[in-house]
Order: sequence, then C-alpha cells, then structure tokens
Amino acid sequence: MDSLHSNVPAFDSSDLKDLKQKLVDGCHILDREGITDGFGHASVRIPGTEAFLTLAGVSPGCATVDRLVLLDFDGGYLGGEKAPPYEWPIHACIMRARPDVMSVCHTHSKWSSLFSVLKGGLRPIHMYAKFLAAAGPPIYPGSGLIATIERGGALAAALRDSAAVLMRAHGDAVVGTSLEQAILRTIQLAFLGELAHMAVAHGEPLYMTQEELATFSADQAFPARPWEYYLSRVRERRLP
Amino acid sequence: MDSLHSNVPAFDSSDLKDLKQKLVDGCHILDREGITDGFGHASVRIPGTEAFLTLAGVSPGCATVDRLVLLDFDGGYLGGEKAPPYEWPIHACIMRARPDVMSVCHTHSKWSSLFSVLKGGLRPIHMYAKFLAAAGPPIYPGSGLIATIERGGALAAALRDSAAVLMRAHGDAVVGTSLEQAILRTIQLAFLGELAHMAVAHGEPLYMTQEELATFSADQAFPARPWEYYLSRVRERRLP
Amino acid sequence: MDSLHSNVPAFDSSDLKDLKQKLVDGCHILDREGITDGFGHASVRIPGTEAFLTLAGVSPGCATVDRLVLLDFDGGYLGGEKAPPYEWPIHACIMRARPDVMSVCHTHSKWSSLFSVLKGGLRPIHMYAKFLAAAGPPIYPGSGLIATIERGGALAAALRDSAAVLMRAHGDAVVGTSLEQAILRTIQLAFLGELAHMAVAHGEPLYMTQEELATFSADQAFPARPWEYYLSRVRERRLP
Amino acid sequence: MDSLHSNVPAFDSSDLKDLKQKLVDGCHILDREGITDGFGHASVRIPGTEAFLTLAGVSPGCATVDRLVLLDFDGGYLGGEKAPPYEWPIHACIMRARPDVMSVCHTHSKWSSLFSVLKGGLRPIHMYAKFLAAAGPPIYPGSGLIATIERGGALAAALRDSAAVLMRAHGDAVVGTSLEQAILRTIQLAFLGELAHMAVAHGEPLYMTQEELATFSADQAFPARPWEYYLSRVRERRLP
Repeated sequence: MDSLHSNVPAFDSSDLKDLKQKLVDGCHILDREGITDGFGHASVRIPGTEAFLTLAGVSPGCATVDRLVLLDFDGGYLGGEKAPPYEWPIHACIMRARPDVMSVCHTHSKWSSLFSVLKGGLRPIHMYAKFLAAAGPPIYPGSGLIATIERGGALAAALRDSAAVLMRAHGDAVVGTSLEQAILRTIQLAFLGELAHMAVAHGEPLYMTQEELATFSADQAFPARPWEYYLSRVRERRLP
Repeated sequence: MDSLHSNVPAFDSSDLKDLKQKLVDGCHILDREGITDGFGHASVRIPGTEAFLTLAGVSPGCATVDRLVLLDFDGGYLGGEKAPPYEWPIHACIMRARPDVMSVCHTHSKWSSLFSVLKGGLRPIHMYAKFLAAAGPPIYPGSGLIATIERGGALAAALRDSAAVLMRAHGDAVVGTSLEQAILRTIQLAFLGELAHMAVAHGEPLYMTQEELATFSADQAFPARPWEYYLSRVRERRLP
Repeated sequence: MDSLHSNVPAFDSSDLKDLKQKLVDGCHILDREGITDGFGHASVRIPGTEAFLTLAGVSPGCATVDRLVLLDFDGGYLGGEKAPPYEWPIHACIMRARPDVMSVCHTHSKWSSLFSVLKGGLRPIHMYAKFLAAAGPPIYPGSGLIATIERGGALAAALRDSAAVLMRAHGDAVVGTSLEQAILRTIQLAFLGELAHMAVAHGEPLYMTQEELATFSADQAFPARPWEYYLSRVRERRLP
Repeated sequence: MDSLHSNVPAFDSSDLKDLKQKLVDGCHILDREGITDGFGHASVRIPGTEAFLTLAGVSPGCATVDRLVLLDFDGGYLGGEKAPPYEWPIHACIMRARPDVMSVCHTHSKWSSLFSVLKGGLRPIHMYAKFLAAAGPPIYPGSGLIATIERGGALAAALRDSAAVLMRAHGDAVVGTSLEQAILRTIQLAFLGELAHMAVAHGEPLYMTQEELATFSADQAFPARPWEYYLSRVRERRLP
C-alpha cells in the first residue's frame, strides 16, 4: 500500500468490521424493500480517506461481508474480493466530487427508471422529499453503463449538489452523509416516484413548494427508527 | 400523579395489560397490511380519563408492550418509555376535541398521501366507506409535523365530526370508538383510496350517494371477523 | 330433519368430510391469492339435494372444517356452527335458480368492486375469459348486503345464466359446476379485471370477440393443474 | 429409440441430471417472480440433438425433476412422464426453426398479455431491453392454444429472429441461447412491460433508440449474478 493509502485500514482489519456489516445490512434492506433486483450496489467511504467499500460481483440481496471489495478513487484494488465492480466509477467519481458524501447507492429502481425517461421529471408531492429540491432530482442523460472515469465524472456533474440523480433508461444514484441516510433516501425516492406516478392520472396535483419542503426540513428527524424497522424486516424474512 | 390523573391506572398496572397488547396488535396489523412504514403511530384512550397510551419512538411494526408511553392531553408524562412521541398532539388534541373518540391512528398511508394533494378529494365508490360522507374525508392543509398543540388543534378542527382526515403531503389521522374500529377504518380508507385512484382512469365512476351509504350502514356489522383475520395474518408472519 | 331433507347427510357424517375440506381449501386459496379480505364466503351444494355448506361467521382465510354451517335454500339450519352467515341468500337463491350450479363464491374482490361502478363494464381481453361473454359479466345494481330472499332473488336474476355477476360498490358472485371451478373462475375474473383496468390507459385495446372466446373454449382444459398449484401456495405459506 | 434419436441420452441417464435440475430451478424462478400462474412451461434443448425436456402436466411452481417429459420435435415421446404437454409445439416448432435457441419459456405473463392486445406495442424505455429491437417484440395474432404443428409454425414465423414474441390474449414465448438467458429475459420482459405501461400515463416518454440499445449491448454482461440472486429467492421461500 503506497503512502496515499497509508491511513486506510486493511480489508480484514477489525476497524472495518462494523462498516462492512452495515453495508451488507443496507444492501439487504434495499432488496427486501423491492428497490433492487439482481443488479445494483451500495458503497461506503472509509472515514477520512479516499477509499470505499462496495459489493464485488454479487447482487445486493446476496451480499455478505466476504463478498466486498476495498477500492480507491481510481479503482485501485486495496483488498477483499478480487473482482472490481464494473460500475465502480459511480461511487469513486461521486465521492471524489462530493467530500460531504459518505455513501452512494446505485439501483435500477423501477420508479427512478420510469421518471428517468419522462419529460416532466419527478416533482415531489410528499414531505419525504425534504432531501430534494421542489423541481425533483436532475437526470443524467448518457447511455451505457458507468464503467469509465469519464462516464462517472459526467454522472457526478449531473448530480451536482443534489442528494439524488436519475440515470436515463437505467436507474438512479442516491447519496448521503451516512450509509443509513443514503439507503433511506433511496427507499423514500421510490415512494416519491410511486406517488408522483399515481397523481398524474388525476390532473395537476398540489406539488410541494420550496417553502413547504423547508418547513418539513425544519422538523426534528428520527433516522434510527426506520433503520431499526427496515432491519427488522430483513431479519424476519431470514427466519428459518 | 396529581388529582386530575388520580383515576388513571399506573403504566405497569394490570388494568392496562390488555389495552397495551391490543394497541401493539393494532400497530402490527397496520404494518402487516402495508399501511405504515417506519413512521406512524396509534393511540388508545384510557377509558374514562384524559390520558392515552401510544408508541414511544418505535415504528408500528416493531412495537412491543414495553415501548409505549402514557401521556395526558397536555403531553404530560404519566409512565412508560421516557421519550414522548414527536407528534403526540395528533392524539391529544383529537381526543380532547372528540369525547367519542377512543382511539386515533396516524399513518403515512400511500393512498391518503396521494389524495391529500389531489383537487378532487377521495370520493367513495365502495360500501366500506360507510364511515365516511359521500364527499369523502376532509383535508388538513398545513405544512410541518404536528409537534405543537396549535397544529394539533388545527388538525382536530379540520377533522370536525368526521371519522378521518387527510393530512396534506403527509398522510392521515383516523378515529374510532374503539381501537379495533380505528385500525379497521384505516385499512378500509386505504382500500377506498386504491379503488378511487383506479377508477379515475375510466371516466366518471358511479360514486356512492349519501342514501346508498346509509343503506349499507343500516346493515349489521361484524367487526370481530376482520380483527380475527388481520391478527391471524400478523401471527402467521411471525411463525419461525 | 323433515322429509324434504331426508337425503341430506348429517353435518358430522363422513360423507361430508371431503367436501368440507375442499370448501376450506378453496377459501384459503382465495385468501392466499389476495382476492378476499376479512369478508366473503364460498359455498358448495350437497350433491343431489337442496342444501349447501358455507362459512359460519369466519373470514375465508381463517376457515376450518369446524366453522362451517349446513343450510337449506330457505336458510333453515341443518347442522354445524349455529350462526348463519348474514348473506346466506347469495348462495341459496343462486343455487335454487340455477340447478347447474354446485358452488358459489362471494368476495369483495378489488377488481370486481372497481368494475362494478364503471360505466363501460369488464370486457375481456384475455383467453381466461372463456367462461364469460364478450360483453363481460352483468352488474347487480342494488344497495345493501344480500341479507334477504328478495335481495338474493334479485341478485340471481341479475346473474341470469352467466358464470359471474358484479355487485355494485360491493364485489362479485361467481358460480361453477364444481367448487374448484368457482374458485378458479374467481381468481381469473380478478386477473381479467386487472388486465382490463391497465389496458384502458392505452386507448381502445383489442377486445376478445365471441368467436375468439369460442376458439379458446374449444381447447382442452386442465383444471387439476391450477388447483394443485394454488393449494401448494396455501400449504407453503402455512409451513412450518 | 430410432437412429434419429440415437444421440439423445435416456431420460434417466445421469447426463441429463444437471439439465433437469436447471429446468426445474428456472420454472421455480419464474413462479417466484410472479411471472407465471398455474399454467406455462419452459423447455431446454438436449445439446446437439433434436430433442428437448419440458414440464409434463404440472405448473411451473410445482415442477420437480420427476415431472418432466423428453420429446422430439414432432412431439414424439422419448422418456419421462407420459402426458405430453398440450402446447408442446411452442417449444418444438421454435427450436426447429431456430437452431440458435437452446431454451424457450412460455408464460401467461400479465405484462405480455396486456401488450399483446394493445395497438402501440411494447416499445422499450429501459436498458434491460438490449435483447429486443427498438420497436419491441412482434405479436402473434392467432386464437387458440398452440396445440398443433400448424399453430406452432405460425408462432415461430411470428417470432422470426427475435428474442420474444407476444401471443395475443394469451401471453408470450421467450427464447435464449441458454436456459438461464431465456428465464432472465422473461423476467426482464415483464419489467419492461410494467415500465412501458406506467409511462403511458405521462405523455410520450423517451423511447430507447436502436443506437442506445446498441450502446448498452456493448457493455459487459453478468448473467451469473441474477441467476444466483433469483435462485436464492426461491430457496429462501422454501425454508420451513
């Protein structure tokens, strides 16, 4: 390991144990909630470094702590499973461009896929959108998987300072200042998509204004509660 | 405990044992039926008092008899878990304004959320609406969580003498003369929302008239049957 | 037991054992497939008699062989649980009017409820409709539960010689020459409703003609296959 | 066994053991993902021969390695369960016309059924369509089950060189160069149908162009990942 990565713990170090488990839990949550299918991945930055953990060639629903890979922001291998994920630049390029981002989720969410090809965008009509602008998330218009630094950079540029970006004919990328936040935002983005889809049948709904979003944002938040809840749903499902 | 609450049983008293279990069961039912997500809560009035039991900082699907709180109508703590729920005024203000109400459910139901931002309201097309007016439930238009007595009072005013109120961009509050009734109405309100949503694609449906609702209301009711049924679905799910 | 019912086996007789189990299985299938909720019931005629078995005050999903009642076509009690079902005339009046009918299912199916209040009816677009006319099932327009012989007779009159009738703002009644057939038709009617609902968003679909329905009807049928399949889904759910 | 089939292994030979298990797994996957109901079947060609394995009179969800049949392309019986499937010509006629095809899936998929009767066809809006043309799959317009060589030939002619064909008022047939591919395409076709259905409510979406489909097709593919994933979902469900 060169000096650039001297502060990155070894893949098998006990320092990463909790982070790995949380990443696996988050992937299982996305799967349990029907957001992911056989594809998609989440990542988490190693705090204070330019390295991250993500899935190595496994579906989110089948993730285990042994099927992760540790990469730097150039895709350099730092440990874990040998196979780097084909779309690693989604995570690397967004984390490089956004130092505030600790975690990125990429899914082929049905709802994000839908709104990625609609002309009107995903304008929020529910308070769960308090992490979005009133105009909804931006859309990345490129074709092809994000397998290069160039495409990853274009995706990060489309994301700008938002919490989510829709990927045309493909899915979404959602970020957070913690893994829990990125996971929960991904779930809520799907809920917002479903609501916005249903509303369109009824004529113009009352879209949320920036002021209303600000009012809801000013309220206290309880992130531990949905995390406990969604985790309980994963565990219940696993009972023999 | 001051004289005002001298008739309220202690949180750990055996008098509250059945009521606590029923409250937990009701929350699990709402979760099992897909009405709630990580948020939302139900409450039940302690009969003959100005106090109620509700969830303390836990998702409905994760509720247990140990994670409840006993509060008075000013939010005063009377027992149980220390953390008062952020939106306790939903329950307190409605129960104060409506002596007939023994139980309140607050959820972020997808269907209530949808109709809360539509201009046409949720006009019923199925007999399950016999607890509603032909015009459907009123809508509370405020922004922000119901964390103050002022907002709780405005919500109760919007509810008036109805059985349910939609909360704009947020969800709903549904009341009953028993906990079972409030839970079942919440489930039926979701069913009514789904039906009304689907109907809109087909041109104007035959909405129920006040007379038809009255005819169905005059029929005998069998509240024990769906309660047994929904409880069986919760228990089946829990089997290892 | 008077002479009119001298050929009806006693409720506890071994002659009825298989029929009872099949009725319970059918109710569980309707529940497992999401057609019923806490309400609804199925019935089966005792072959060669004017008597039938149906559910006694229990949801289809909670049915057991001990919670059935044996009734004649006037609602006269012949054995089993004491509580006659409130809507027994659905079964009695249809069986009396239709000697070919061996079984009746009554549910509050979401799809039947929807099409019961739409002006265009449920016109089939899939071969599963081979038990229906190209115009779809008739609609019973009355309000109120079917708790009297008068309402039951009006329902049977609306059904005429069809295999199904939609009940306005309420649900449906579906008949068959066997219990298996009535159950499967109820499931297929729901499928047809879902398809017809979705199609309406796309402009006029290619509705099935009477000739096409006749072509599909001329094909061999395999009723044992779906019955085995749906039963396996009930049993899987009950594990462990 | 005559000389034409001298290269076909015996039904009980160990050479077919893995292929049988894979066929059963694939059928269970289609069932688990909600693509099939009590009907439908998949098949797999015995490599290098004019023979194939398919289901014998059993629903995909109930398939076992003992309930398969080995047939030649004229429907001639070569081993296994005695009952030939009524629609065997779907498999035989497509495999005869398309030497590249190793596997065929026939389902009554809700989404294929829907688009089979719509005038606009199923135009793709998501990258999963990379196995389809930008115009979507062709539609077989005939009525009646595919129980004859004539109907099977007409179906194969409608399929041409595509990967899927919709069958009017009936369902679909999807092919692959491996069983895994045919199964996964069937799942993805359903996803594409759902997306295209939802999009229509929002005005004209951005349909995929042939160029965009080519760009996505040029990306690396990971077929083992979804196969592992869908299989894990079948196995999880089976746990007692």
